[in-house]
Amino acid sequence: MTQEKIEEVARRRGFFWKGSEIYGGLSGFYDYAHLGSAIKIKWENEWRKFFLSLDDNFFEIQPANIMHEKVFIASGHVDSFVDPVVKCKKCGNFERADQILEHHLKENFEGIEPKELENLIKKHDIKCPKCEGKFEEVGSFNLLFPLTVGAENPQKAYPRGETAQGVYVNFAREFECLRKKLPMGLAIVGKAYRNEISPRNLLLRMREFTQAELQIFFDPEKIEEHPKFEEVRTEKLRVLFVKNKESKEITAEELTNRLPQFYVYHMAKVQKFFLEVMKFPKEKFRFKELSEEERAFYNKYHWDVELELSNGFTEVGGVHYRTDHDLSGHQKVSKEDMSVFTDKKILPHVLELSFGVDRNVLALLELNYREDERNFFTFPRNVSPFHCAVFPLVKKDGLDELATEIKELLKENLSVFYDNSGSIGRRYRRMDEIGVPLCLTVDHKSLEDKTVTLRDRDSMAQVRVKISDLEDFMRRFFKGEDLQNLGVIVK
Amino acid sequence: MTQEKIEEVARRRGFFWKGSEIYGGLSGFYDYAHLGSAIKIKWENEWRKFFLSLDDNFFEIQPANIMHEKVFIASGHVDSFVDPVVKCKKCGNFERADQILEHHLKENFEGIEPKELENLIKKHDIKCPKCEGKFEEVGSFNLLFPLTVGAENPQKAYPRGETAQGVYVNFAREFECLRKKLPMGLAIVGKAYRNEISPRNLLLRMREFTQAELQIFFDPEKIEEHPKFEEVRTEKLRVLFVKNKESKEITAEELTNRLPQFYVYHMAKVQKFFLEVMKFPKEKFRFKELSEEERAFYNKYHWDVELELSNGFTEVGGVHYRTDHDLSGHQKVSKEDMSVFTDKKILPHVLELSFGVDRNVLALLELNYREDERNFFTFPRNVSPFHCAVFPLVKKDGLDELATEIKELLKENLSVFYDNSGSIGRRYRRMDEIGVPLCLTVDHKSLEDKTVTLRDRDSMAQVRVKISDLEDFMRRFFKGEDLQNLGVIVK
Repeated sequence: MTQEKIEEVARRRGFFWKGSEIYGGLSGFYDYAHLGSAIKIKWENEWRKFFLSLDDNFFEIQPANIMHEKVFIASGHVDSFVDPVVKCKKCGNFERADQILEHHLKENFEGIEPKELENLIKKHDIKCPKCEGKFEEVGSFNLLFPLTVGAENPQKAYPRGETAQGVYVNFAREFECLRKKLPMGLAIVGKAYRNEISPRNLLLRMREFTQAELQIFFDPEKIEEHPKFEEVRTEKLRVLFVKNKESKEITAEELTNRLPQFYVYHMAKVQKFFLEVMKFPKEKFRFKELSEEERAFYNKYHWDVELELSNGFTEVGGVHYRTDHDLSGHQKVSKEDMSVFTDKKILPHVLELSFGVDRNVLALLELNYREDERNFFTFPRNVSPFHCAVFPLVKKDGLDELATEIKELLKENLSVFYDNSGSIGRRYRRMDEIGVPLCLTVDHKSLEDKTVTLRDRDSMAQVRVKISDLEDFMRRFFKGEDLQNLGVIVK
Repeated sequence: MTQEKIEEVARRRGFFWKGSEIYGGLSGFYDYAHLGSAIKIKWENEWRKFFLSLDDNFFEIQPANIMHEKVFIASGHVDSFVDPVVKCKKCGNFERADQILEHHLKENFEGIEPKELENLIKKHDIKCPKCEGKFEEVGSFNLLFPLTVGAENPQKAYPRGETAQGVYVNFAREFECLRKKLPMGLAIVGKAYRNEISPRNLLLRMREFTQAELQIFFDPEKIEEHPKFEEVRTEKLRVLFVKNKESKEITAEELTNRLPQFYVYHMAKVQKFFLEVMKFPKEKFRFKELSEEERAFYNKYHWDVELELSNGFTEVGGVHYRTDHDLSGHQKVSKEDMSVFTDKKILPHVLELSFGVDRNVLALLELNYREDERNFFTFPRNVSPFHCAVFPLVKKDGLDELATEIKELLKENLSVFYDNSGSIGRRYRRMDEIGVPLCLTVDHKSLEDKTVTLRDRDSMAQVRVKISDLEDFMRRFFKGEDLQNLGVIVK
């Protein structure tokens, strides 16, 4: 599955395409069409359900996306949220200095100092890929989009470069409103904006993207413990240490020799989400330890979550121990006391579980696409664009009416696609193509014996189920039970 | 209920507060705290469920928020999305010219031409409210936030001033992907951005806000019919005609003497959403016809949806017949053919159902607040911050464990708040204060007979229910059944 293929399929069937397409597109922006939007919403809801359930003191908030410039002065974004850039002396082409080096030398240069990048570009005599011209010195380009707010005395502000800051500025007030105890978790599922120099790879590097992030505030003295660690102690995590070339499996317990228990517990939960909820194959998943150069300076521990996509292992999330970097930064600039009193007065530390929603949606598309005699997507049942399709075999004889009735019934709890035209085989194929896990057909026999045919996407097996049993059937099917356990096999 | 009171309650309990508050706030921006966020998400989901179910050909999409400048040139926003402003010659204070006239003359001047506003300001000798200085001539201020995208050859772009444009630019491609038939509906639930001159009234006039909008594309020749009109024919709609002073009730059928059937059908559905799903009192609701001056020039019919809040009847939505204004605008500027072939070649017309999500959330807070011996919110069961709270009577004797088990069970389908400390009376009161409709208590008797106490927020009635019956109980309770029908009365 190449990215070109995904782009073509996504565009033709209605998952996503370029933003502002009728005006030639706006680079770095994508529009989710009806199918992509449906998957994205379902992914977000599964994420909420899973991560907000980890603790009774975890909640979601929705701060404004545009924030006062001081937020980003305190966070360091105004000064440090920059990419190293080089400009061609001849044609004016801009390139990211680290990426052009990576392209030539097949190594990762992220986080390397500008001066060193410049030396490397000179040493290897790297030229502009567009015109072969020479590059100017390495400069820096800030990724925030500046805005001015208001007519009178305009105030400088920015759409947030990461959702996390929306949590930190609200920490103290939420602590007061909530239980006044740690750990406390605050999540945001929302947009972030970065003026990337070279957006590319479809949904992987965009200028407007969606993050799902959970910031867990905790007492740093308790980092070596987690009350529910027993749940994960023997679980095997797939990890790639910074000094190794191959990933390996290691139990959570073993991993605590190198990482704090509080950190490892959450790694295990993140892996569970990817393997059990999103059903990615284990060999496509790994945690990757970042070297000191690669990780953000404020992260004491920083592991990427990676999935193997068409371009190789790709970051789709991260587990970041941000210490008290953010709260102390806001405390300094805002002069608001961010420390709290639990059994003692402390400035909490933060463990961040961070997910790129668009990258995860792209991963679902890439890793679930199958081509054999059929073209289809094997999305997990709960993150497919529709849970179920409902078809009357023909439009006449009252089948349409009965099918409509059933559709309305199912819509109480499920997303349902209704289609009453074309041959049944063609309708099944169309649903396979967009990954709908279940098709329900109402035929003439349905009128007599009040049963319908259910057809499973993956096995193409068909079972006959009583209409009165449908609610229970659906509940069990979408909890993951096999079709074969749930009815009488017809074919 | 005054806005000051709402603001105080919202801030103290955790519904919403000013954005970037620790930096003095950013005017026109609000942060949803954990309770406000929960209500907003539930409102959005109820909206989706209701409006996307109106037709099998209605779908949600999520286009990028930032769009190419040409989108807003074609839509008219670059030229016409302006407010008339006056600047004080003496102190530099900016005011909206229509609002300062409204303040002095107690009339609505929205949509009045700048020249006329200027004459009125001179005629009535209106001065700067801050320093009594004279105003300069009436100017115009564009409400879009301009942005530049990219490092090389920066491209001008805007965060959308309304979600609707995200639909129009995607119309042709979605029509191809979907059923290629009309009506076709595309919805967006998402942010819009307007650089308001005087943001005010909490969530009513913000610079960043959320809209839920459904754009229905249809054949204008069929505007006098709707296949499901029978469903609504005898329903009484509350309307305020432009020439009347009092709103009155009139059946959908009668209303078709003045408005097309297709339009009236959707008005009836909008009213149903407000009265039956959101359960607002009928006397607080009305449709208000807009005069020719008030309505946008491209709207052939334009009725506001209003709720009576603390400041009087307030726009919370609208039903807009936008004709082919938008599609033909984009067709002209993009040179893409927006016409489609159904039984003939046509450029579809658009009926827009538009909702201000933040305004609706504020309305839920204002109109559901009660103060008697208790302070509580009477939110509809499905749009309260949590469906249910679960309490063990005490933390010992295994009650905590059983209550946790029940909480996990309920979380499959409901949002649940768990609290194991403080007296039960105090815990009930805390849940009343944030409007949780149901509290579940596990006591010592629960260990013996496997029953729990359920306590209803509104009636304060308590019933005893078997744990094994809970799932069914909850399903029926949240479908709207009375508590009394669902168990044995204890108190």
